[in-house]
Amino acid sequence: MSDRFSVTYRIRAEDLADAESRAAAIALEDTVEIPRDVVPKGYVEDVILGRVDAVLPREAGVFEARVSYHIDAVGRELPQFLNVMLGNASILQGVRAIGLTQNADLRDRFPGPRFGAAGLRRLTGRSQGGFVCPVIKPQGSSAEDLARLCYLTARAGADIVKEDHGLANQDAAPFRDRVALCAGAVRRANEERAAEGDATRALYFANIGGHGDQVRDLALYARDAGAAGILLIPGLFGFDAMNRLAQEPGFDLPIMAHPSHLGPYVLSPDHGYAHGLLFGTLMRLAGADISVFPNHGGRFGFSQAQCEEIVAACRAEDGPGPAILPSPGGGMSLDRLPDMMRLYGEDCVYLLGGSLLRYGDRIGDAIRDMRNALDGRPRDGA
Amino acid sequence: MSDRFSVTYRIRAEDLADAESRAAAIALEDTVEIPRDVVPKGYVEDVILGRVDAVLPREAGVFEARVSYHIDAVGRELPQFLNVMLGNASILQGVRAIGLTQNADLRDRFPGPRFGAAGLRRLTGRSQGGFVCPVIKPQGSSAEDLARLCYLTARAGADIVKEDHGLANQDAAPFRDRVALCAGAVRRANEERAAEGDATRALYFANIGGHGDQVRDLALYARDAGAAGILLIPGLFGFDAMNRLAQEPGFDLPIMAHPSHLGPYVLSPDHGYAHGLLFGTLMRLAGADISVFPNHGGRFGFSQAQCEEIVAACRAEDGPGPAILPSPGGGMSLDRLPDMMRLYGEDCVYLLGGSLLRYGDRIGDAIRDMRNALDGRPRDGA
Repeated sequence: MSDRFSVTYRIRAEDLADAESRAAAIALEDTVEIPRDVVPKGYVEDVILGRVDAVLPREAGVFEARVSYHIDAVGRELPQFLNVMLGNASILQGVRAIGLTQNADLRDRFPGPRFGAAGLRRLTGRSQGGFVCPVIKPQGSSAEDLARLCYLTARAGADIVKEDHGLANQDAAPFRDRVALCAGAVRRANEERAAEGDATRALYFANIGGHGDQVRDLALYARDAGAAGILLIPGLFGFDAMNRLAQEPGFDLPIMAHPSHLGPYVLSPDHGYAHGLLFGTLMRLAGADISVFPNHGGRFGFSQAQCEEIVAACRAEDGPGPAILPSPGGGMSLDRLPDMMRLYGEDCVYLLGGSLLRYGDRIGDAIRDMRNALDGRPRDGA
Repeated sequence: MSDRFSVTYRIRAEDLADAESRAAAIALEDTVEIPRDVVPKGYVEDVILGRVDAVLPREAGVFEARVSYHIDAVGRELPQFLNVMLGNASILQGVRAIGLTQNADLRDRFPGPRFGAAGLRRLTGRSQGGFVCPVIKPQGSSAEDLARLCYLTARAGADIVKEDHGLANQDAAPFRDRVALCAGAVRRANEERAAEGDATRALYFANIGGHGDQVRDLALYARDAGAAGILLIPGLFGFDAMNRLAQEPGFDLPIMAHPSHLGPYVLSPDHGYAHGLLFGTLMRLAGADISVFPNHGGRFGFSQAQCEEIVAACRAEDGPGPAILPSPGGGMSLDRLPDMMRLYGEDCVYLLGGSLLRYGDRIGDAIRDMRNALDGRPRDGA
């Protein structure tokens, strides 16, 4: 089987025969997209056409089908990989991709993230413990105000200072101005931390705001301005934009993927991708070093099991690429951190956004409280 | 209200108070993404923050909320427009965007397609009647074989010769080789048609296959090679990639949008976008001149009402931009064309793909049969 990679689909069907017929339809749909009886003999039929390897019943009306594909149907570019995996099949009723089994061809063409979890330990200097990650916001603030939040949170010990995904390229804080100021603010905080003998440093992740065809230029600008990482929204810019950055020879920063606009791919159990496949496997394949997802019990409705599936996929030993850091967020608070730490462990980026703003100029205290909560110590002054 | 554009959301909620609360949460989520009580006074609260204009009951447990946004929350780039419209809100349970009301700011920044339906009448020379559009496939075929299908269908009177969306940049027919051959084949057919006094011509639409950041270069290459249009998959390359091409000063070809990978945005009634909003309104806003969608009764499960909603949105007089051509496909056959013509009328691109291959070298007969069926004439020889 190693000359083909395979995708497992969850299929709603009336019975096994119906499920087998639907699986065969997927194999056609995502490759040749013509009726079976007119598929040309030879190369197209033998290599290009998807092949149904197995169809198994799972529960009443639900089956799992494994369909294998040859890399020749993909070529070298990520958009066509997704087109084969779930292009037109994404429009079929009752079809959901739930698993991917790579082969050597796929690993070769999409080797995954540059840094992963181990790389981020090295870059931050945080040899153990969860990663503290404040989110800088809201949009509409001036670049100076945002840079001040960057300084205060970095100075107080943040591991990653992440911009809000809504900080794009608006007039209130245009991308280039904002990134230069924020990167400078974090650099100053890191210098002060180093002077105090702190072996860790804060990495400032700039959110790419602009056009899709500017991602590379904006990322290089951010790096040259002092950013230590890039936040990108694959649901808006495309998974390929992220992968291009991860594979760009002249680029050397970690990438954090944000789930904005991707909700419909997971919310219905009958369509799209399984949570772990999208926010774990595919994020890794496309080069994310950190994958942000909405934690259970916050503003979004993911279940604990779905979150655990995402985390398992981020850490799976068989790739794609090295294990990455999951990053649960979406309405978290300091009070929930100890429970989250028990669930997710230390190889995890803990986001805290809007609720930090309640601290005002004392936002540094919140960062220290986050650190203590993750390390199992009482809050300062408690 | 003209200083803001507005988005209408369908919201599942327990009662009106719950719906109002959920609408307020959307307004926060897609702009400032912080708790209401920490939204800074002044510009952020007055301009940037989304504003709930109305919440109305629709049916048991279902409400509609109109939320207005200021262009300052968007800036000038399409990714951030979608981020405001349905970014994080796409991950909320039971929230679906169902309508967009533009304002002058939005029209100014996203003026829509360059050609639209009227432009395609001019480019093809087809002053009346439905547009006949064969789809060239399957992938895995050589560029020579694909070019031969282009020639035969163009020669027989096709209005648009569209590549299959699975023809990317695979080794069997790399993008640049394939496009040069196919464009040359259609040019030859058009020269022969013109020599016979035919006032119409076939437009060859090349499918962009490659990386997202190569879209502009590949499209310019295709134009220079003789392609008369571009097929693009916004669900893989991003809506911004399409819009950039539509607004590119140095580019002057019509764009056809393919729905691959977009299924999950419409399939669940509780999430994503309404069919008409996605495949009509947003395709127009992002610059598509033709919007492909799966016809009811084919391989996909769209209802006739959903298809009619798409067509109405493609033709709505109030934009975005000029009316565009809907293009139903997905398992159509010659037998269904008269019924489709009655439903969709002449301002429509009629796709026929895999079933054409049954004709073999007589594929030209199928094109003539399509023309006759759309014009209400009996088939040749019938």
